[in-house]
Amino acid sequence: MPGWIESSCAMMLIHDIVDNDEQKNRGVRMRLRNKPWAKEKIAAYPQYVIPHPEEYKGRWNELFGNDHPIHIEIGTGKGKFITEMAKANPNINYIGIELYPSVLVSALDKLIANELPNLRLLNVNAKDLPNFFAEGEIERIYLNFSDPWPKKRHEKRRLTYRSFLELYEKVLVDEGEIHFKTDNQGFFEYSLVSFSQYGLVLTYVSLDLHNSDFEGNIMTEYEEKFSAKGNRIYRCEVKYPPKQRHS
Amino acid sequence: MPGWIESSCAMMLIHDIVDNDEQKNRGVRMRLRNKPWAKEKIAAYPQYVIPHPEEYKGRWNELFGNDHPIHIEIGTGKGKFITEMAKANPNINYIGIELYPSVLVSALDKLIANELPNLRLLNVNAKDLPNFFAEGEIERIYLNFSDPWPKKRHEKRRLTYRSFLELYEKVLVDEGEIHFKTDNQGFFEYSLVSFSQYGLVLTYVSLDLHNSDFEGNIMTEYEEKFSAKGNRIYRCEVKYPPKQRHS
Repeated sequence: MPGWIESSCAMMLIHDIVDNDEQKNRGVRMRLRNKPWAKEKIAAYPQYVIPHPEEYKGRWNELFGNDHPIHIEIGTGKGKFITEMAKANPNINYIGIELYPSVLVSALDKLIANELPNLRLLNVNAKDLPNFFAEGEIERIYLNFSDPWPKKRHEKRRLTYRSFLELYEKVLVDEGEIHFKTDNQGFFEYSLVSFSQYGLVLTYVSLDLHNSDFEGNIMTEYEEKFSAKGNRIYRCEVKYPPKQRHS
Repeated sequence: MPGWIESSCAMMLIHDIVDNDEQKNRGVRMRLRNKPWAKEKIAAYPQYVIPHPEEYKGRWNELFGNDHPIHIEIGTGKGKFITEMAKANPNINYIGIELYPSVLVSALDKLIANELPNLRLLNVNAKDLPNFFAEGEIERIYLNFSDPWPKKRHEKRRLTYRSFLELYEKVLVDEGEIHFKTDNQGFFEYSLVSFSQYGLVLTYVSLDLHNSDFEGNIMTEYEEKFSAKGNRIYRCEVKYPPKQRHS
């Protein structure tokens, strides 16, 4: 693969979204503001941030009270994207997944302010997805400005690495979709190859989203900041092959 | 698909490489210099521009006098790329295919000057590939700065349209490759999707070739001109799936 373009976004993501023992131990590289009250606040809103999501495995439709399709975002961050998506699409149920309480509280604040019946949040690790969702329960996964983990030795941590694609397949419907955005060129190149090698079919790609004719784009917090600095935004949609044909 | 970026290169290609009855009839949009002597000159060098390539179908190795793999370039233009490739890789046989005699003469001049035993040229239409090559006779196809045909109604003329991918499959070895370069963003986006939908597997992609760590890039005439103007060069490699599994 070609060299990684370590964009300012990539660097920031590395600082912000840390799932790295080495960095955790050192602590200093984290730009996450420490919010000791975050966990407590999250615990105070169990109707929004579901405390034991494994209890809803296979029956999220009961929680939402309807059979609308479920779309999840992995790495919801401060929640702008998923909140606006939920507002714009009342007939789709959204679940935002975020590992870091200090970030998730901002998403929670938006949900408190908006009271959206079709949006819930989970404070969990994406690696445990199959504990929370049954096979075929999710129709679409959003990956927005995920940590690019530019170092080759961290490849397995990238959310588009094949072990994650396997994980997603376990919870997605037949021919389920991933919609992916990033401003990191190297990460986008890597992901296009990873998707293809896994057998996913590319159904849409834009190499400059903000100068394309794509309509209805909802920007994340990162996207607003880094596109304003002139970074190109890359976006693609891929689809899993029909399960009976997929070996 | 997102809107086409009609780069200067794209426009020039449309003007230069015309396979469009409407434009042919009008004539005026062609920037190809009319060289009435081109056909004659080509005919004078039958050892370099093979006059009846159908006679070698299934036995190009006899013409080259060895069993080295054969790589072809479709739309060889003035021949810089294929000539330098042939010089750099004496153990690969190259065949440059170009429809327009007025352009092909420049490639012929380079071959006359270099006398490369592993390079031959064909003045034919890519649509007729299976008349000239047997199944499995070609290992790799190069598409460099092909005409993007930006208008949707001309989609079928793009060399990465599915009917061309079918055509290539007829002459390629099992798991044969296409290596593709362009500076036209819209054409590259289109081609990534077209390749994937056809079942080809992406093995390499660069969204900014000249700022990547890709080594040994040989530039075409177009590439030199338009990268100097600041255009990004896009490049990918795709591979056909094993034939027994491909439906």
